[in-house]
Amino acid sequence: MKILIVHAHPEPRSLNGALKDLAVSTLEAAGHEVRVSDLYAMNWKAVVDAADYGPHASSPLQVARDSGRAFDAGALTADVRAEQDKLLWADTIIFQFPLWWYSMPAILKGWVDRVFTFHFAYGVGEHSDVRYGDRYGEGTLAGRRALLSVTVGGRESHYAARGINGPIDDLLFPIQHGILYYPGIEVLPPFVLYGVDRMTDEDYPDVAKAWKQRLLTLESTDPIPFRPQNFGDYDIPSLQLKPGLEPAGRTGFGLHVRG
Amino acid sequence: MKILIVHAHPEPRSLNGALKDLAVSTLEAAGHEVRVSDLYAMNWKAVVDAADYGPHASSPLQVARDSGRAFDAGALTADVRAEQDKLLWADTIIFQFPLWWYSMPAILKGWVDRVFTFHFAYGVGEHSDVRYGDRYGEGTLAGRRALLSVTVGGRESHYAARGINGPIDDLLFPIQHGILYYPGIEVLPPFVLYGVDRMTDEDYPDVAKAWKQRLLTLESTDPIPFRPQNFGDYDIPSLQLKPGLEPAGRTGFGLHVRG
Repeated sequence: MKILIVHAHPEPRSLNGALKDLAVSTLEAAGHEVRVSDLYAMNWKAVVDAADYGPHASSPLQVARDSGRAFDAGALTADVRAEQDKLLWADTIIFQFPLWWYSMPAILKGWVDRVFTFHFAYGVGEHSDVRYGDRYGEGTLAGRRALLSVTVGGRESHYAARGINGPIDDLLFPIQHGILYYPGIEVLPPFVLYGVDRMTDEDYPDVAKAWKQRLLTLESTDPIPFRPQNFGDYDIPSLQLKPGLEPAGRTGFGLHVRG
Repeated sequence: MKILIVHAHPEPRSLNGALKDLAVSTLEAAGHEVRVSDLYAMNWKAVVDAADYGPHASSPLQVARDSGRAFDAGALTADVRAEQDKLLWADTIIFQFPLWWYSMPAILKGWVDRVFTFHFAYGVGEHSDVRYGDRYGEGTLAGRRALLSVTVGGRESHYAARGINGPIDDLLFPIQHGILYYPGIEVLPPFVLYGVDRMTDEDYPDVAKAWKQRLLTLESTDPIPFRPQNFGDYDIPSLQLKPGLEPAGRTGFGLHVRG
Protein backbone atom coordinates (compact mmCIF):
# COMPACT_ATOMS: atom_id res chain seq x y z
CA MET A 1 0.00 0.00 0.00
CA LYS A 2 0.90 3.67 -0.37
CA ILE A 3 -0.20 5.25 2.85
CA LEU A 4 -0.54 8.92 3.77
CA ILE A 5 -0.85 9.66 7.47
CA VAL A 6 -2.32 13.09 8.29
CA HIS A 7 -1.44 13.81 11.90
CA ALA A 8 -2.86 16.63 14.02
CA HIS A 9 -1.56 16.91 17.59
CA PRO A 10 0.67 19.65 19.04
CA GLU A 11 2.74 17.28 21.25
CA PRO A 12 4.99 14.66 19.62
CA ARG A 13 5.21 12.78 22.94
CA SER A 14 1.43 12.44 23.22
CA LEU A 15 -0.67 9.33 22.77
CA ASN A 16 -1.56 10.62 19.31
CA GLY A 17 2.12 11.04 18.53
CA ALA A 18 2.85 7.51 19.72
CA LEU A 19 0.04 6.07 17.60
CA LYS A 20 1.31 7.94 14.56
CA ASP A 21 4.87 6.69 15.12
CA LEU A 22 3.60 3.15 15.62
CA ALA A 23 1.64 3.35 12.38
CA VAL A 24 4.74 4.44 10.47
CA SER A 25 6.97 1.70 11.90
CA THR A 26 4.35 -1.04 11.64
CA LEU A 27 3.36 -0.27 8.07
CA GLU A 28 6.95 0.21 6.85
CA ALA A 29 7.98 -3.06 8.49
CA ALA A 30 5.15 -4.73 6.58
CA GLY A 31 6.62 -3.46 3.31
CA HIS A 32 4.32 -0.53 2.65
CA GLU A 33 5.31 2.99 1.56
CA VAL A 34 4.38 5.65 4.12
CA ARG A 35 4.33 9.42 3.94
CA VAL A 36 3.35 11.66 6.87
CA SER A 37 1.79 15.10 6.93
CA ASP A 38 2.47 16.16 10.53
CA LEU A 39 0.43 19.36 10.49
CA TYR A 40 1.86 20.92 13.66
CA ALA A 41 5.44 20.07 12.66
CA MET A 42 4.75 21.60 9.22
CA ASN A 43 3.33 24.74 10.86
CA TRP A 44 0.32 24.19 8.60
CA LYS A 45 -1.61 27.38 7.77
CA ALA A 46 -5.09 26.60 9.02
CA VAL A 47 -7.06 29.51 7.63
CA VAL A 48 -8.52 29.97 4.13
CA ASP A 49 -7.90 33.47 2.77
CA ALA A 50 -7.21 35.34 -0.46
CA ALA A 51 -3.49 34.54 -0.27
CA ASP A 52 -4.37 30.92 -1.08
CA TYR A 53 -5.45 31.82 -4.60
CA GLY A 54 -2.80 34.37 -5.61
CA PRO A 55 -3.79 36.22 -8.81
CA HIS A 56 -6.93 34.08 -9.03
CA ALA A 57 -8.39 35.64 -5.88
CA SER A 58 -11.32 37.85 -6.91
CA SER A 59 -12.23 41.09 -5.23
CA PRO A 60 -14.52 40.50 -3.46
CA LEU A 61 -13.16 37.05 -2.69
CA GLN A 62 -15.31 34.08 -3.74
CA VAL A 63 -13.84 31.06 -1.99
CA ALA A 64 -15.37 28.27 -4.06
CA ARG A 65 -14.99 29.86 -7.49
CA ASP A 66 -11.53 31.32 -6.86
CA SER A 67 -10.17 28.08 -5.40
CA GLY A 68 -11.37 26.28 -8.54
CA ARG A 69 -9.77 28.87 -10.82
CA ALA A 70 -6.48 28.60 -8.98
CA PHE A 71 -6.67 24.80 -9.03
CA ASP A 72 -7.39 24.73 -12.77
CA ALA A 73 -4.41 27.00 -13.40
CA GLY A 74 -2.07 24.93 -11.20
CA ALA A 75 -1.65 28.09 -9.17
CA LEU A 76 -2.65 27.02 -5.67
CA THR A 77 0.02 27.62 -3.05
CA ALA A 78 2.85 25.07 -2.87
CA ASP A 79 1.74 23.72 0.50
CA VAL A 80 -1.77 22.94 -0.80
CA ARG A 81 -0.49 21.44 -4.06
CA ALA A 82 1.85 19.19 -2.10
CA GLU A 83 -1.06 17.83 -0.04
CA GLN A 84 -3.20 17.28 -3.13
CA ASP A 85 -0.29 15.41 -4.73
CA LYS A 86 0.07 13.23 -1.63
CA LEU A 87 -3.63 12.38 -1.76
CA LEU A 88 -3.34 11.43 -5.43
CA TRP A 89 -0.23 9.34 -4.69
CA ALA A 90 -1.82 7.45 -1.77
CA ASP A 91 -4.18 4.52 -1.92
CA THR A 92 -4.82 4.68 1.83
CA ILE A 93 -5.11 7.70 4.11
CA ILE A 94 -4.99 7.56 7.90
CA PHE A 95 -6.08 10.55 9.98
CA GLN A 96 -4.66 10.63 13.51
CA PHE A 97 -6.23 13.21 15.82
CA PRO A 98 -7.85 13.87 19.18
CA LEU A 99 -11.59 14.56 19.19
CA TRP A 100 -11.82 18.18 20.37
CA TRP A 101 -15.33 19.48 20.89
CA TYR A 102 -16.80 16.55 18.99
CA SER A 103 -14.84 17.27 15.83
CA MET A 104 -11.32 17.66 14.43
CA PRO A 105 -8.75 20.12 15.84
CA ALA A 106 -8.85 23.39 13.90
CA ILE A 107 -5.50 22.70 12.22
CA LEU A 108 -6.94 19.58 10.60
CA LYS A 109 -10.18 21.31 9.64
CA GLY A 110 -8.00 23.95 8.03
CA TRP A 111 -6.19 21.23 6.10
CA VAL A 112 -9.56 20.12 4.71
CA ASP A 113 -10.76 23.68 4.05
CA ARG A 114 -7.61 24.56 2.10
CA VAL A 115 -6.73 21.26 0.36
CA PHE A 116 -10.23 20.13 -0.64
CA THR A 117 -10.69 22.88 -3.21
CA PHE A 118 -13.38 23.36 -5.83
CA HIS A 119 -12.67 21.22 -8.93
CA PHE A 120 -10.40 18.98 -6.85
CA ALA A 121 -12.73 17.69 -4.12
CA TYR A 122 -16.07 19.28 -5.05
CA GLY A 123 -17.60 20.81 -8.14
CA VAL A 124 -16.36 17.75 -10.07
CA GLY A 125 -18.41 16.29 -12.95
CA GLU A 126 -21.67 17.37 -14.54
CA HIS A 127 -24.01 19.57 -12.49
CA SER A 128 -27.45 19.81 -14.12
CA ASP A 129 -31.07 18.91 -13.51
CA VAL A 130 -30.27 15.27 -14.17
CA ARG A 131 -26.93 14.94 -12.41
CA TYR A 132 -25.42 16.67 -9.38
CA GLY A 133 -21.73 16.02 -9.80
CA ASP A 134 -19.38 13.13 -9.20
CA ARG A 135 -19.57 12.89 -5.45
CA TYR A 136 -20.46 10.50 -2.65
CA GLY A 137 -18.65 7.46 -3.96
CA GLU A 138 -17.30 9.06 -7.13
CA GLY A 139 -14.87 11.90 -7.65
CA THR A 140 -11.20 12.78 -7.79
CA LEU A 141 -10.22 10.53 -4.89
CA ALA A 142 -12.23 7.43 -5.87
CA GLY A 143 -10.37 4.17 -5.42
CA ARG A 144 -8.78 5.28 -2.16
CA ARG A 145 -9.59 4.20 1.38
CA ALA A 146 -9.36 6.16 4.61
CA LEU A 147 -9.36 5.40 8.32
CA LEU A 148 -9.90 7.77 11.24
CA SER A 149 -7.81 7.02 14.33
CA VAL A 150 -9.33 9.12 17.07
CA THR A 151 -8.61 9.59 20.76
CA VAL A 152 -11.51 10.62 23.00
CA GLY A 153 -11.34 11.92 26.55
CA GLY A 154 -14.79 10.78 27.66
CA ARG A 155 -16.09 7.35 28.48
CA GLU A 156 -17.32 4.93 25.81
CA SER A 157 -20.82 4.75 27.29
CA HIS A 158 -21.25 8.50 26.73
CA TYR A 159 -20.82 7.83 22.98
CA ALA A 160 -23.09 4.76 22.78
CA ALA A 161 -26.43 4.63 20.98
CA ARG A 162 -28.18 6.31 23.95
CA GLY A 163 -25.12 8.13 25.33
CA ILE A 164 -25.41 11.82 26.13
CA ASN A 165 -22.77 12.97 23.62
CA GLY A 166 -24.50 11.19 20.75
CA PRO A 167 -23.37 7.99 19.02
CA ILE A 168 -19.75 8.12 17.84
CA ASP A 169 -20.77 6.99 14.34
CA ASP A 170 -23.07 9.99 14.05
CA LEU A 171 -20.48 12.42 15.45
CA LEU A 172 -17.97 11.19 12.87
CA PHE A 173 -20.49 11.12 9.98
CA PRO A 174 -19.82 14.72 8.85
CA ILE A 175 -16.14 13.73 8.50
CA GLN A 176 -16.45 10.18 7.21
CA HIS A 177 -19.35 10.82 4.82
CA GLY A 178 -19.34 14.59 4.31
CA ILE A 179 -15.58 15.11 3.88
CA LEU A 180 -14.09 11.73 2.87
CA TYR A 181 -16.80 9.84 0.99
CA TYR A 182 -17.81 13.05 -0.83
CA PRO A 183 -14.74 13.13 -3.15
CA GLY A 184 -14.90 9.36 -3.55
CA ILE A 185 -12.88 7.88 -0.69
CA GLU A 186 -14.17 4.65 0.86
CA VAL A 187 -14.05 4.87 4.66
CA LEU A 188 -13.10 2.00 6.96
CA PRO A 189 -14.69 1.73 10.41
CA PRO A 190 -12.81 4.12 12.73
CA PHE A 191 -10.27 3.16 15.39
CA VAL A 192 -11.51 4.99 18.49
CA LEU A 193 -9.85 5.02 21.91
CA TYR A 194 -12.06 6.25 24.75
CA GLY A 195 -11.20 7.52 28.21
CA VAL A 196 -7.70 8.56 27.18
CA ASP A 197 -7.62 11.29 29.85
CA ARG A 198 -7.54 8.55 32.45
CA MET A 199 -5.23 6.21 30.54
CA THR A 200 -1.86 5.31 32.13
CA ASP A 201 1.42 3.98 30.78
CA GLU A 202 0.28 0.53 31.86
CA ASP A 203 -2.64 0.69 29.45
CA TYR A 204 -0.46 1.47 26.44
CA PRO A 205 0.69 -2.06 25.50
CA ASP A 206 -2.90 -3.20 24.98
CA VAL A 207 -3.68 -0.05 22.99
CA ALA A 208 -0.61 -0.53 20.82
CA LYS A 209 -1.50 -4.16 20.22
CA ALA A 210 -5.04 -3.24 19.11
CA TRP A 211 -3.76 -0.49 16.82
CA LYS A 212 -1.15 -2.76 15.19
CA GLN A 213 -3.86 -5.34 14.64
CA ARG A 214 -6.01 -2.77 12.82
CA LEU A 215 -3.05 -1.55 10.77
CA LEU A 216 -2.07 -5.03 9.65
CA THR A 217 -5.61 -5.89 8.58
CA LEU A 218 -6.39 -2.68 6.66
CA GLU A 219 -6.38 -4.44 3.31
CA SER A 220 -8.94 -7.04 4.39
CA THR A 221 -11.26 -4.61 6.21
CA ASP A 222 -14.55 -3.78 4.52
CA PRO A 223 -15.50 -0.10 4.26
CA ILE A 224 -18.62 1.43 5.74
CA PRO A 225 -21.29 0.75 3.06
CA PHE A 226 -22.32 4.37 2.43
CA ARG A 227 -24.82 4.70 -0.40
CA PRO A 228 -23.33 6.12 -3.62
CA GLN A 229 -25.21 9.11 -5.00
CA ASN A 230 -25.54 8.20 -8.65
CA PHE A 231 -26.60 4.54 -8.67
CA GLY A 232 -30.32 4.68 -8.11
CA ASP A 233 -30.81 5.09 -4.36
CA TYR A 234 -31.57 8.83 -4.56
CA ASP A 235 -34.18 10.87 -6.38
CA ILE A 236 -32.70 13.49 -8.71
CA PRO A 237 -32.55 16.46 -8.38
CA SER A 238 -33.88 16.44 -4.80
CA LEU A 239 -31.20 13.92 -3.74
CA GLN A 240 -33.50 12.48 -1.13
CA LEU A 241 -33.29 8.77 -0.41
CA LYS A 242 -36.07 6.96 -2.26
CA PRO A 243 -38.83 5.57 -0.03
CA GLY A 244 -38.52 2.11 1.42
CA LEU A 245 -34.82 1.47 0.83
CA GLU A 246 -33.84 1.61 4.48
CA PRO A 247 -34.34 -1.03 7.16
CA ALA A 248 -37.45 -0.40 9.27
CA GLY A 249 -36.93 2.33 11.86
CA ARG A 250 -33.67 3.65 10.41
CA THR A 251 -33.54 7.47 10.38
CA GLY A 252 -31.05 10.32 10.29
CA PHE A 253 -27.48 9.76 9.12
CA GLY A 254 -28.02 6.01 9.22
CA LEU A 255 -30.28 6.26 6.15
CA HIS A 256 -27.15 6.75 4.07
CA VAL A 257 -25.61 3.45 5.10
CA ARG A 258 -26.81 0.33 3.26
CA GLY A 259 -28.03 -2.84 4.92
CA MET B 1 -29.82 42.38 25.40
CA LYS B 2 -26.02 42.23 25.41
CA ILE B 3 -25.12 40.51 22.19
CA LEU B 4 -21.80 39.07 21.06
CA ILE B 5 -21.51 38.29 17.36
CA VAL B 6 -18.74 35.87 16.45
CA HIS B 7 -18.14 36.24 12.73
CA ALA B 8 -16.04 33.92 10.55
CA HIS B 9 -15.74 34.84 6.87
CA PRO B 10 -12.64 36.09 5.03
CA GLU B 11 -14.51 38.58 2.80
CA PRO B 12 -16.25 41.61 4.40
CA ARG B 13 -18.30 42.12 1.20
CA SER B 14 -19.69 38.58 1.31
CA LEU B 15 -23.23 37.50 2.18
CA ASN B 16 -21.92 36.52 5.60
CA GLY B 17 -20.41 39.97 6.00
CA ALA B 18 -23.70 41.59 5.01
CA LEU B 19 -25.67 39.46 7.47
CA LYS B 20 -23.21 40.37 10.24
CA ASP B 21 -23.48 44.08 9.43
CA LEU B 22 -27.26 43.85 9.30
CA ALA B 23 -27.32 42.14 12.69
CA VAL B 24 -25.23 44.92 14.23
CA SER B 25 -27.35 47.73 12.81
CA THR B 26 -30.69 46.04 13.48
CA LEU B 27 -29.88 45.13 17.08
CA GLU B 28 -28.31 48.48 17.92
CA ALA B 29 -31.30 50.31 16.43
CA ALA B 30 -33.51 48.21 18.70
CA GLY B 31 -31.57 49.48 21.72
CA HIS B 32 -29.34 46.50 22.39
CA GLU B 33 -25.61 46.50 23.13
CA VAL B 34 -23.58 44.69 20.48
CA ARG B 35 -19.96 43.57 20.39
CA VAL B 36 -18.38 41.79 17.43
CA SER B 37 -15.53 39.29 17.25
CA ASP B 38 -14.67 39.38 13.55
CA LEU B 39 -12.18 36.54 13.55
CA TYR B 40 -10.59 37.23 10.16
CA ALA B 41 -10.30 40.96 10.89
CA MET B 42 -8.72 40.11 14.25
CA ASN B 43 -6.28 37.73 12.55
CA TRP B 44 -7.42 35.17 15.10
CA LYS B 45 -4.84 32.48 15.88
CA ALA B 46 -6.66 29.27 15.03
CA VAL B 47 -4.29 26.67 16.39
CA VAL B 48 -3.93 25.41 19.96
CA ASP B 49 -0.30 25.07 21.01
CA ALA B 50 1.98 25.43 24.02
CA ALA B 51 2.24 29.19 23.56
CA ASP B 52 -1.39 29.44 24.69
CA TYR B 53 -0.49 28.40 28.23
CA GLY B 54 2.78 30.27 28.83
CA PRO B 55 4.58 29.04 31.93
CA HIS B 56 1.68 26.67 32.61
CA ALA B 57 2.47 24.59 29.51
CA SER B 58 3.86 21.25 30.67
CA SER B 59 6.53 19.31 28.84
CA PRO B 60 5.16 17.18 27.33
CA LEU B 61 2.16 19.42 26.69
CA GLN B 62 -1.17 18.29 28.13
CA VAL B 63 -3.81 20.43 26.47
CA ALA B 64 -6.70 19.90 28.87
CA ARG B 65 -4.75 20.06 32.13
CA ASP B 66 -2.46 22.89 31.08
CA SER B 67 -5.31 25.03 29.74
CA GLY B 68 -7.08 24.62 33.08
CA ARG B 69 -3.95 25.56 35.03
CA ALA B 70 -3.45 28.66 32.91
CA PHE B 71 -7.14 29.56 33.25
CA ASP B 72 -7.03 29.14 37.02
CA ALA B 73 -3.98 31.40 37.22
CA GLY B 74 -5.52 34.05 34.96
CA ALA B 75 -2.55 33.42 32.68
CA LEU B 76 -4.20 32.53 29.38
CA THR B 77 -3.13 34.73 26.47
CA ALA B 78 -4.78 38.14 26.20
CA ASP B 79 -6.72 37.23 23.04
CA VAL B 80 -8.31 34.20 24.72
CA ARG B 81 -9.07 36.07 27.95
CA ALA B 82 -10.76 38.82 25.94
CA GLU B 83 -13.07 36.29 24.27
CA GLN B 84 -13.89 34.60 27.57
CA ASP B 85 -14.71 38.03 29.02
CA LYS B 86 -17.00 38.81 26.07
CA LEU B 87 -18.83 35.51 26.60
CA LEU B 88 -19.30 36.32 30.29
CA TRP B 89 -20.50 39.84 29.40
CA ALA B 90 -23.04 38.67 26.80
CA ASP B 91 -26.48 37.24 27.36
CA THR B 92 -26.87 36.32 23.70
CA ILE B 93 -24.27 35.02 21.23
CA ILE B 94 -24.73 34.91 17.46
CA PHE B 95 -22.38 32.87 15.30
CA GLN B 96 -22.24 33.96 11.65
CA PHE B 97 -20.41 31.56 9.33
CA PRO B 98 -20.56 29.58 6.09
CA LEU B 99 -20.92 25.81 6.37
CA TRP B 100 -17.65 24.49 4.98
CA TRP B 101 -17.44 20.71 4.71
CA TYR B 102 -20.48 20.30 6.94
CA SER B 103 -18.94 22.19 9.85
CA MET B 104 -17.44 25.52 10.85
CA PRO B 105 -14.52 27.18 9.06
CA ALA B 106 -11.24 26.28 10.75
CA ILE B 107 -10.80 29.78 12.17
CA LEU B 108 -14.04 29.42 14.13
CA LYS B 109 -13.20 25.89 15.26
CA GLY B 110 -9.92 27.36 16.47
CA TRP B 111 -11.83 29.99 18.41
CA VAL B 112 -13.69 27.17 20.19
CA ASP B 113 -10.57 25.04 20.70
CA ARG B 114 -8.68 27.95 22.27
CA VAL B 115 -11.41 29.85 24.16
CA PHE B 116 -13.40 26.91 25.56
CA THR B 117 -10.63 25.86 27.97
CA PHE B 118 -10.67 23.34 30.77
CA HIS B 119 -12.23 24.83 33.95
CA PHE B 120 -13.94 27.50 31.82
CA ALA B 121 -16.08 25.46 29.42
CA TYR B 122 -15.41 21.88 30.56
CA GLY B 123 -14.08 20.20 33.66
CA VAL B 124 -16.47 22.39 35.68
CA GLY B 125 -18.16 21.06 38.81
CA GLU B 126 -17.91 17.75 40.66
CA HIS B 127 -16.66 14.75 38.68
CA SER B 128 -17.25 11.53 40.61
CA ASP B 129 -19.18 8.27 40.43
CA VAL B 130 -22.38 10.14 41.26
CA ARG B 131 -21.89 13.28 39.21
CA TYR B 132 -20.10 14.02 35.94
CA GLY B 133 -19.66 17.74 36.04
CA ASP B 134 -21.81 20.79 35.41
CA ARG B 135 -22.46 20.40 31.72
CA TYR B 136 -25.25 20.04 29.21
CA GLY B 137 -27.52 22.72 30.53
CA GLU B 138 -25.32 23.79 33.47
CA GLY B 139 -21.87 25.34 33.55
CA THR B 140 -19.99 28.60 33.28
CA LEU B 141 -22.16 29.96 30.46
CA ALA B 142 -25.58 29.00 31.84
CA GLY B 143 -28.21 31.69 31.46
CA ARG B 144 -27.02 32.66 27.98
CA ARG B 145 -28.62 31.94 24.63
CA ALA B 146 -26.98 31.37 21.24
CA LEU B 147 -28.06 31.33 17.61
CA LEU B 148 -26.22 29.93 14.61
CA SER B 149 -26.64 31.94 11.39
CA VAL B 150 -25.31 29.68 8.67
CA THR B 151 -25.01 29.97 4.90
CA VAL B 152 -25.05 26.76 2.89
CA GLY B 153 -24.09 26.31 -0.76
CA GLY B 154 -26.26 23.26 -1.47
CA ARG B 155 -30.00 22.95 -1.89
CA GLU B 156 -32.37 22.64 1.04
CA SER B 157 -33.68 19.24 -0.09
CA HIS B 158 -30.16 17.82 0.25
CA TYR B 159 -30.32 18.67 3.97
CA ALA B 160 -33.86 17.40 4.61
CA ALA B 161 -34.76 14.37 6.72
CA ARG B 162 -33.92 12.02 3.83
CA GLY B 163 -31.46 14.31 2.04
CA ILE B 164 -28.09 12.92 1.01
CA ASN B 165 -26.01 15.29 3.17
CA GLY B 166 -27.92 14.35 6.30
CA PRO B 167 -30.50 16.47 8.15
CA ILE B 168 -29.24 19.96 8.96
CA ASP B 169 -30.28 19.57 12.61
CA ASP B 170 -28.03 16.53 12.90
CA LEU B 171 -25.12 18.21 11.09
CA LEU B 172 -25.35 21.13 13.51
CA PHE B 173 -25.86 18.95 16.60
CA PRO B 174 -22.13 18.64 17.42
CA ILE B 175 -22.00 22.46 17.49
CA GLN B 176 -25.36 23.27 19.04
CA HIS B 177 -25.33 20.50 21.65
CA GLY B 178 -21.68 19.45 21.88
CA ILE B 179 -20.10 22.92 21.94
CA LEU B 180 -22.81 25.37 23.05
CA TYR B 181 -25.21 23.47 25.31
CA TYR B 182 -22.24 21.73 26.95
CA PRO B 183 -21.08 24.78 28.98
CA GLY B 184 -24.68 25.74 29.66
CA ILE B 185 -25.82 27.90 26.73
CA GLU B 186 -29.42 27.48 25.54
CA VAL B 187 -29.54 27.27 21.74
CA LEU B 188 -32.21 28.84 19.57
CA PRO B 189 -33.26 27.16 16.30
CA PRO B 190 -30.67 28.09 13.64
CA PHE B 191 -31.11 30.61 10.84
CA VAL B 192 -30.01 28.68 7.74
CA LEU B 193 -29.82 30.03 4.19
CA TYR B 194 -29.55 27.37 1.49
CA GLY B 195 -28.40 27.59 -2.11
CA VAL B 196 -26.34 30.70 -1.49
CA ASP B 197 -23.95 29.80 -4.33
CA ARG B 198 -26.80 30.48 -6.75
CA MET B 199 -28.20 33.50 -4.90
CA THR B 200 -28.26 36.86 -6.71
CA ASP B 201 -28.49 40.46 -5.57
CA GLU B 202 -32.21 40.29 -6.31
CA ASP B 203 -32.65 37.62 -3.66
CA TYR B 204 -31.03 39.70 -0.93
CA PRO B 205 -33.98 41.87 0.16
CA ASP B 206 -36.02 38.78 1.08
CA VAL B 207 -33.05 37.29 2.89
CA ALA B 208 -32.46 40.53 4.80
CA LYS B 209 -36.12 40.74 5.76
CA ALA B 210 -36.14 37.18 7.11
CA TRP B 211 -32.92 37.76 9.07
CA LYS B 212 -34.20 41.02 10.61
CA GLN B 213 -37.39 39.22 11.59
CA ARG B 214 -35.35 36.54 13.40
CA LEU B 215 -33.15 39.17 15.09
CA LEU B 216 -36.11 41.19 16.35
CA THR B 217 -37.81 38.12 17.82
CA LEU B 218 -34.79 36.61 19.55
CA GLU B 219 -36.15 37.36 23.00
CA SER B 220 -39.44 35.59 22.37
CA THR B 221 -37.94 32.55 20.61
CA ASP B 222 -37.91 29.29 22.53
CA PRO B 223 -34.63 27.35 22.61
CA ILE B 224 -34.20 23.81 21.34
CA PRO B 225 -35.32 21.66 24.30
CA PHE B 226 -32.10 19.68 24.77
CA ARG B 227 -32.21 17.40 27.80
CA PRO B 228 -30.13 18.64 30.74
CA GLN B 229 -27.69 16.09 32.09
CA ASN B 230 -28.30 16.29 35.81
CA PHE B 231 -32.09 16.33 36.19
CA GLY B 232 -33.05 12.69 35.97
CA ASP B 233 -33.14 11.83 32.28
CA TYR B 234 -29.77 10.06 32.27
CA ASP B 235 -28.38 7.11 34.18
CA ILE B 236 -25.26 7.95 36.18
CA PRO B 237 -22.40 7.20 35.64
CA SER B 238 -23.14 5.70 32.20
CA LEU B 239 -24.89 8.91 31.07
CA GLN B 240 -27.15 6.93 28.79
CA LEU B 241 -30.70 8.14 28.32
CA LYS B 242 -33.04 6.16 30.57
CA PRO B 243 -35.34 3.75 28.72
CA GLY B 244 -38.72 4.93 27.49
CA LEU B 245 -38.23 8.70 27.77
CA GLU B 246 -38.17 9.33 24.04
CA PRO B 247 -41.08 9.43 21.60
CA ALA B 248 -41.54 6.12 19.76
CA GLY B 249 -39.05 5.66 16.93
CA ARG B 250 -36.72 8.49 17.99
CA THR B 251 -33.03 7.51 17.73
CA GLY B 252 -29.60 9.08 17.38
CA PHE B 253 -29.03 12.72 18.25
CA GLY B 254 -32.78 13.28 18.46
CA LEU B 255 -32.89 11.29 21.70
CA HIS B 256 -31.34 14.27 23.43
CA VAL B 257 -34.17 16.61 22.51
CA ARG B 258 -37.29 16.50 24.67
CA GLY B 259 -40.81 16.14 23.38
